[in-house]
Amino acid sequence: MSEVFEKFQKYLQRVRQYGQIQTLLYWDMKTGMPKEGFEGHSEALTFFSTEQFKLETAPELKGYLEELNKKEELDLLDADWQFIVRRMKRDLERNERMPEAFVAELVQAQAESGKAWEEAKGASDFSIFAPHLEKMIDLTKKKCGYTHPGVEVYDALLDQYEEGMDSQTIDRIFGELKEALLPLLKKILAARQPDDRKFSAFCSADDQSKLQKFLLSYIGFDWSRGAAGESEHPFTLNFSSKDVRVTNHYYENSPLFAIFSAIHEGGHAIFEQNVNPKLDGTAAGSCRYMGIHESQSRFYENVLGRSLAFWEPIYGDVQKLLPAFSDITLEEFYREINHVKNSFIRTEADEVTYCFHVMLRYEMEKAIFRDGVKVEELPAMWNEKMQEYLQITPANDAEGILQDMHWSDGSFGYFPSYLLGSIYDGMFLEQIEKELGPVDGILRSGRIMEITGWLGEKIHRYGSSRLPKEVIAQVCGREVTAQPLVDYFTKKYTDVYGL
Amino acid sequence: MSEVFEKFQKYLQRVRQYGQIQTLLYWDMKTGMPKEGFEGHSEALTFFSTEQFKLETAPELKGYLEELNKKEELDLLDADWQFIVRRMKRDLERNERMPEAFVAELVQAQAESGKAWEEAKGASDFSIFAPHLEKMIDLTKKKCGYTHPGVEVYDALLDQYEEGMDSQTIDRIFGELKEALLPLLKKILAARQPDDRKFSAFCSADDQSKLQKFLLSYIGFDWSRGAAGESEHPFTLNFSSKDVRVTNHYYENSPLFAIFSAIHEGGHAIFEQNVNPKLDGTAAGSCRYMGIHESQSRFYENVLGRSLAFWEPIYGDVQKLLPAFSDITLEEFYREINHVKNSFIRTEADEVTYCFHVMLRYEMEKAIFRDGVKVEELPAMWNEKMQEYLQITPANDAEGILQDMHWSDGSFGYFPSYLLGSIYDGMFLEQIEKELGPVDGILRSGRIMEITGWLGEKIHRYGSSRLPKEVIAQVCGREVTAQPLVDYFTKKYTDVYGL
Repeated sequence: MSEVFEKFQKYLQRVRQYGQIQTLLYWDMKTGMPKEGFEGHSEALTFFSTEQFKLETAPELKGYLEELNKKEELDLLDADWQFIVRRMKRDLERNERMPEAFVAELVQAQAESGKAWEEAKGASDFSIFAPHLEKMIDLTKKKCGYTHPGVEVYDALLDQYEEGMDSQTIDRIFGELKEALLPLLKKILAARQPDDRKFSAFCSADDQSKLQKFLLSYIGFDWSRGAAGESEHPFTLNFSSKDVRVTNHYYENSPLFAIFSAIHEGGHAIFEQNVNPKLDGTAAGSCRYMGIHESQSRFYENVLGRSLAFWEPIYGDVQKLLPAFSDITLEEFYREINHVKNSFIRTEADEVTYCFHVMLRYEMEKAIFRDGVKVEELPAMWNEKMQEYLQITPANDAEGILQDMHWSDGSFGYFPSYLLGSIYDGMFLEQIEKELGPVDGILRSGRIMEITGWLGEKIHRYGSSRLPKEVIAQVCGREVTAQPLVDYFTKKYTDVYGL
Repeated sequence: MSEVFEKFQKYLQRVRQYGQIQTLLYWDMKTGMPKEGFEGHSEALTFFSTEQFKLETAPELKGYLEELNKKEELDLLDADWQFIVRRMKRDLERNERMPEAFVAELVQAQAESGKAWEEAKGASDFSIFAPHLEKMIDLTKKKCGYTHPGVEVYDALLDQYEEGMDSQTIDRIFGELKEALLPLLKKILAARQPDDRKFSAFCSADDQSKLQKFLLSYIGFDWSRGAAGESEHPFTLNFSSKDVRVTNHYYENSPLFAIFSAIHEGGHAIFEQNVNPKLDGTAAGSCRYMGIHESQSRFYENVLGRSLAFWEPIYGDVQKLLPAFSDITLEEFYREINHVKNSFIRTEADEVTYCFHVMLRYEMEKAIFRDGVKVEELPAMWNEKMQEYLQITPANDAEGILQDMHWSDGSFGYFPSYLLGSIYDGMFLEQIEKELGPVDGILRSGRIMEITGWLGEKIHRYGSSRLPKEVIAQVCGREVTAQPLVDYFTKKYTDVYGL
């Protein structure tokens, strides 16, 4: 190990402490802090993020990265560290190109825009948010100009959340999916729908929490390296592969929410627990690709968790833990968890209509950044697309264009990751079946840990050290395609709805 | 506000962030962290405590304190700030007199001693711990020589935990108490004891947690400025008066444990919530006197919480929340929560025998530091005193001299604070009755918030800005005395035991 690499590693450990402590503050704000503690925790977050920013932009770090990116130093590093020092240098250079005054303006605008969005959503009035959205679009274009000069803005945005992904590829795979799924969805919506009244029966938060514990253990969450909390919205975070946290929210008359949130967040968490501990504390120690990350949560939630075979070995346990389920048969349960409904809210959508919620947002983001569509035209465009894809029109902006917060802080380009995750899932499913045999058989005999083991070995352990396209190429041996997801949907819903 | 004072305040805010974040790490380690997260959190604690130490000993801070302690600057400050800058200067000077090599030796010895104590306790073998105890005694003497030159060692130790308190005063008041209490205890132990079998009935952790919530609200804990967690041992901590946390532990067959831990920690927590917010973030913003702090937790736990009148308005709620209590009458409950037993373990003792557990430790600490009693003589001394006070002899070191961890890290002088708390309580009770009328009447009519209000106004709001002796003098108008506590014990237990 060279002297500069040694110093660099010590420096990284220092930076890491400031990052981790913000993660802990965030965890505590969402799960433990009393209301009035907000001010103190916010001050602490500002303080430690400022300290981290100072360290991340210090000449000392820049010096190390210059040195380490020289051929003679690079040659001494293993592949993971080469990847890390190259990327850190690139990220530092990107950030350095943003003038300080611009960063300050952006932070300020994000805060104001977030507030305006909340107000607008509360009042269901897009016009309150519109000028802020316009400003966020403008600043986002400028930002990409600094960070990704010479790259088309929307491709630069996609690259932030799913590095190496571009709109050409997404156009192709979303296109494949839309073409096959739109006729399938029309058939589904015309078919007989199940009776869902039993699924609003009362289940106490305590019982739901015990079921969550059972389900997480069942799918492979390691409690010696993980913990659970309660928060307004479910999320997953991690300090290292040895300390991964999930949250859930228990609605006492909607038990399915917590069940599928548990499995979804469990998928994110198992990913982080399975990253090679050797990468802990490095830029590759946690998965930073949103599409790949989402593929794992959705694989557990949808591909596994919404199959009949998943529940067969454990449905008796579910009924024991949730007494209200004693008069719901496994068949009724399976039917309801695959109930396809055309509804307005993305986060409440089933796995089929969810695809269209994302495509709509992707198409609108492209229209904004590529075609220069004006902000005031967006609500109408939203409503037209909802009508085209889901055959419904929102009654107001709150259940239409204002429902998600992503655009309010400039997270354009994030939405496609959700659907990329599902598309990857189709491919992973196909590959698992090639290598391990039919997933239904594995699940039915309670051998889900074989699947968790496969995902860990093929995907999780690499953390961020492979780009999404490399993951797909290495795991599935081909380019990304929506065909396997189309096959999965077609087979499953033809059966579920007797089409 | 002078320029130097402004800079000093900014500097304090910085130091405070490093202190608070350690509090959060500690909270999370005890309440949320999975087992394998230990290493990461320990590293973070070391990192942030080192950063804090650097700031607290930096020439910059010393410069501010020199300036602010000059007459012309002091005159510009209000009384609280004068107190704070004087004390900070004094503490800094004390710490500066300790050579760095000595501090390193002490930290190292504490770590080794803590480990040896755990091992010794596990093996119930004092000889494993003895050499470490000897070293801790030696280092403690040296430390006091640096921090409190010219002060008798044991008085310097007492001063650390209850500033301004000395062994002459404690000798007097513990003496008053012992003289009256020893004959009372003998009578109690000879009297008929209640049947406690019903009190090991099963109560689920969920039910106990709900009861804790009810009790904390009832005594005045403010949930908008406080939260509760679960940990191995109950404790209270605070970030500011706006964010105070308590924990509890639920033994499913010992429901009384969590009930009285809730009220005890609630007392500590209400104290911290009631400190004047103007003192937040200063050295006076939280109570640092262990005796005064303990007086508040014990006032709620014992003086209020073990009275019949406290439970009269709420015992029906207790029975609703803990179904196992439906066949326990209020009279049986009251009888059991005042069950006096001569037992070995301090932390499990009732309020009467507890006094002797503390006196024993106080006398032994004096023997160590004043009379130079040798370490190898301590176990026999312990056992003799147990026999003298409680008429029992420990069967082994684990239930004797090894039971507490305090001596293992050199916290000599801490134990007396527990009993000082009870002695103060006797005085506060007498004073409240003078000012508000009989406490029983107030409690019986559900007006406990009048008492919480009185304590807040007279004691809590000052935080650490008055020394313990000043608190007693100003609140009770006289010197500290054990007589009111003796009166309280005599009246109560004569009645409870029909003596």
